[in-house]
Amino acid sequence: MAIRYGVIGTGALGGFYGGKLAKAGQEVHFLLRSDFEYVHESGLQVDSVDGDFHLPKVNAYRSSSEMPVCDVILVCLKTTANHSLPEILKPIIHSESVVILMQNGLGQEEDLSVQVPGVAIGGGLAFICSNKIGPGHIQHLDYGRIIIGSYNVPDSEILKSLVLDFQAAGVPSELSLDLNQSRWQKLAWNIPFSGLTVVLDTNTEMLMLNENSRQLAEELMLEVIRGANACGVPLKESLARQMIDMTMKMNPYAPSMKLDYDYRRPMEIEYIYSKPVQAAKAAGFEMHQISMLEKQLRFIEAKRFDW
Amino acid sequence: MAIRYGVIGTGALGGFYGGKLAKAGQEVHFLLRSDFEYVHESGLQVDSVDGDFHLPKVNAYRSSSEMPVCDVILVCLKTTANHSLPEILKPIIHSESVVILMQNGLGQEEDLSVQVPGVAIGGGLAFICSNKIGPGHIQHLDYGRIIIGSYNVPDSEILKSLVLDFQAAGVPSELSLDLNQSRWQKLAWNIPFSGLTVVLDTNTEMLMLNENSRQLAEELMLEVIRGANACGVPLKESLARQMIDMTMKMNPYAPSMKLDYDYRRPMEIEYIYSKPVQAAKAAGFEMHQISMLEKQLRFIEAKRFDW
Repeated sequence: MAIRYGVIGTGALGGFYGGKLAKAGQEVHFLLRSDFEYVHESGLQVDSVDGDFHLPKVNAYRSSSEMPVCDVILVCLKTTANHSLPEILKPIIHSESVVILMQNGLGQEEDLSVQVPGVAIGGGLAFICSNKIGPGHIQHLDYGRIIIGSYNVPDSEILKSLVLDFQAAGVPSELSLDLNQSRWQKLAWNIPFSGLTVVLDTNTEMLMLNENSRQLAEELMLEVIRGANACGVPLKESLARQMIDMTMKMNPYAPSMKLDYDYRRPMEIEYIYSKPVQAAKAAGFEMHQISMLEKQLRFIEAKRFDW
Repeated sequence: MAIRYGVIGTGALGGFYGGKLAKAGQEVHFLLRSDFEYVHESGLQVDSVDGDFHLPKVNAYRSSSEMPVCDVILVCLKTTANHSLPEILKPIIHSESVVILMQNGLGQEEDLSVQVPGVAIGGGLAFICSNKIGPGHIQHLDYGRIIIGSYNVPDSEILKSLVLDFQAAGVPSELSLDLNQSRWQKLAWNIPFSGLTVVLDTNTEMLMLNENSRQLAEELMLEVIRGANACGVPLKESLARQMIDMTMKMNPYAPSMKLDYDYRRPMEIEYIYSKPVQAAKAAGFEMHQISMLEKQLRFIEAKRFDW
């Protein structure tokens, strides 16, 4: 049975993954805001290391109330917009719909389950370097793997179908057996590099070239891992060294939070920092250094927008 | 018996305190670098909240080899210049000389005792807002109290005479019974505010207006206090709240490290951060948040000067 897809937010993530599914022949409905007119007229352009493609005609909407109900809804908004999800989702969910939160951070599935009781929720973790470089124009620079996991999806068959659809569309994809663990593992990279690139106004390469910042990044990773362990999530401390080694080999990279900061968009502090700090604290472990980074980011955010 | 004073470094500190002693009739010899010509010709000008004064003729030198030997030598250089102290002090110390390190931080007396074996060393802690605003021109904005303590001074009489000379010159001054404790207590303020104003590019008022940075400043203070306690220095945790309350009442203030950063001068990271972190660690206490601030500052310093 074919899945009808809804993509909420057609930027670097939604434009790429939704575009790949549509190109592979899936039925995909895209919700857009500022780019609606352009995409409605001209479609989507994806410049990708795996091969460029253009979709001249896509199902584009400026409001979810105009969209059909969908089986799988890929939420590709920043977590800073999650407060608007109940209103967006209401017209497009049916009794069997699954909402996949394609976002970094921790705890957003739990929040959504309170905001929209009864809906089936999963999470998606995208390991990708992509940017929106113009209206309806996505640039895919590197990587692209996506991990899908269940938060409270009663029937895992639909998640398996989603993974197969991604694979058929040329997107490396796998099913996580433990979404919570997958989220913590991704945080082990995101927490040091998102915050430090903002606070120190730099990129991953600069952080890796300086021994103080490299050591600090590893300390922050270890604190994430210990926080995860306190929450009953089994991550090995050796993961920190592996991630540092991997980052040292990466091209210079600005995490999405750094781009949000540079382009004066709100930063995802709540779900990437505050929720993990709170979760570990509730489990009896204080993540002191991460909490310090959280407070520094909140100061920087307030300085930008309040004053 | 009158003390012959040498002042090493005639900036915001040396110009003010040396100037006050000279104005009160003490014999003071000033070592200068860039301002030598000007001060030699035109003297020192001190604009002070306690009353402006001008010293038309001061004993100014551009090299310590031209200075007479001195009884009390007030070192008013940044700690970043301490490597040059053996050469500077050699021509001006006699067997009874006392060297007072008028600097923030921890451990510089111990380092000097290794660099210049046998010399009598004390420390001076200045609670003052002052700046050098032009050649030989000091602006004294607020406060001014100075605490003097012994590191290895065999005869405390000379320190008492120094305190009395300061008092006679109109400088509130007192003798510390425990220099190490006085240094840690001052660090409890300097560690949060020096580092946070640099890393977050702000001033004390902004830090106090935001609840995240205010809480972070207090956490850092508590970490200093616990580090001090681990080193056997009895500071009370209630000191943190007192210092926060005091800072909330202060005029907006940029600590000297922030000015050093803004004016692209080296920052005193070693003695204000690294030495206290190392001292606490040696006593079995890890100051995690301060160590993080230290690494952030070292990254920022490297970014400015290496790249």
